[in-house]
Amino acid sequence: MPEPRRDSRREPQDGPVLLYGIHAVEAALRNPRRAIRRLLLTENAERRLAEAIAARGVQAERVIPRDLDRRLGPDTVHQGALLETEPLPESSLAELASRTDRGPIVVLDQVTDPHNVGAVLRSAAAFGAAGLVMTRRHSPPLAGALAKSASGALDLVPVALVQNLARSLAELGELGLTRIGLDGTASETIEDQRLTGPIALVLGAEGKGLRQLTKESCDCLCRITTPGPLSSLNVSNAAAVVLHAAALHRQGRAG
Amino acid sequence: MPEPRRDSRREPQDGPVLLYGIHAVEAALRNPRRAIRRLLLTENAERRLAEAIAARGVQAERVIPRDLDRRLGPDTVHQGALLETEPLPESSLAELASRTDRGPIVVLDQVTDPHNVGAVLRSAAAFGAAGLVMTRRHSPPLAGALAKSASGALDLVPVALVQNLARSLAELGELGLTRIGLDGTASETIEDQRLTGPIALVLGAEGKGLRQLTKESCDCLCRITTPGPLSSLNVSNAAAVVLHAAALHRQGRAG
Repeated sequence: MPEPRRDSRREPQDGPVLLYGIHAVEAALRNPRRAIRRLLLTENAERRLAEAIAARGVQAERVIPRDLDRRLGPDTVHQGALLETEPLPESSLAELASRTDRGPIVVLDQVTDPHNVGAVLRSAAAFGAAGLVMTRRHSPPLAGALAKSASGALDLVPVALVQNLARSLAELGELGLTRIGLDGTASETIEDQRLTGPIALVLGAEGKGLRQLTKESCDCLCRITTPGPLSSLNVSNAAAVVLHAAALHRQGRAG
Repeated sequence: MPEPRRDSRREPQDGPVLLYGIHAVEAALRNPRRAIRRLLLTENAERRLAEAIAARGVQAERVIPRDLDRRLGPDTVHQGALLETEPLPESSLAELASRTDRGPIVVLDQVTDPHNVGAVLRSAAAFGAAGLVMTRRHSPPLAGALAKSASGALDLVPVALVQNLARSLAELGELGLTRIGLDGTASETIEDQRLTGPIALVLGAEGKGLRQLTKESCDCLCRITTPGPLSSLNVSNAAAVVLHAAALHRQGRAG
């Protein structure tokens, strides 16, 4: 087996990027930019993925569920499908900005939970976001648990990994985007914003929220209207709410 | 230590209900209906919870983080706070229906992932839902991982556990509620519904969706408009989107 290509996102000790779960593996097989190193499937998973395998023209190696349990740990819901692959080519901020006719760019400020980032990617794909920006450090790997939670969206939504979020927000501003930070303590509400045109929605980690410099790099800060007894939302739920509102605005419907 | 009270939700082999995480424990301390058996806190957690501890008038037992790691497993994010408690008194469907002036009832059809159910509860608390209905079987325990994800909402949102979901939906209909099932294959969209008045929002498990009998027990089936390349959402994200829309409708704003 060839040595996996290294790139700047990965440490030298990393092995190949692993994707598991039916939806994640199917989306990877259907993504021509996604390299296929090894495809390990149970009989059942191979049946479910038959169409995508045929379209890609690859050969799967047959395994039993226990083989994948041993490889991934017994608590990993792999659904009998494991793909050894490589990181996707990275997107630039300019590439993401060129796609904002279809929806907002989502920017995550050090959200570390892979399930949350995966769910954000999934909502970004569902509501037609232009792409996702994350910091290269303090973000989960674009693989495994994140890809499983993204349910295929990792191969549908372009991701830009950046060194310095404040500088990247400045760059997005120069590219003509309005940068809207979500902040539970803001006085303005997201429901009063016009969410059309080129915008970046900036969301912070649970608990910590947006860092000070991130806040200062936004054009405005808004909160989601929460009439109930709790005022903070799970970050992926907050992203879904705002992406949904933006999708409605783009269709000319009030949000 | 007294033997914890058993109730119908718990198997005889169960120990006390365990809640961990700062927000979950704080909300429990502030809930007078929540029994306190033992409160185990690190020095740091006790400082963060000082106000709630004083308000409740309880005494915490001092532990070090490793004590809780040993008790809960090394991967559990307990934040130095563990509460041994009992299940909350159960709510009836009629009690939930009497609260629908403030928001919809959320009904989950065999959603088994505790993080998802917890996140749904959290959004239900944020957007002011009337309560949550789940099946007693095929739902995660109202404790631990669910309570942590709910971030305090388990002690804010009343939950009804039912034996038979179709029968419960019939009962909610008799109580005057309109039952709206979320179904990605529906032709109608949720954005075209009036989400005011007494309504129940029925959501299914990922992958499986709503069971056939559950669908037949709804007044209408709707999908969330997803203009992007993926059409399915994480169940907690779908719940957040619809609860947000319902909250806007109740404020007389288009959704």
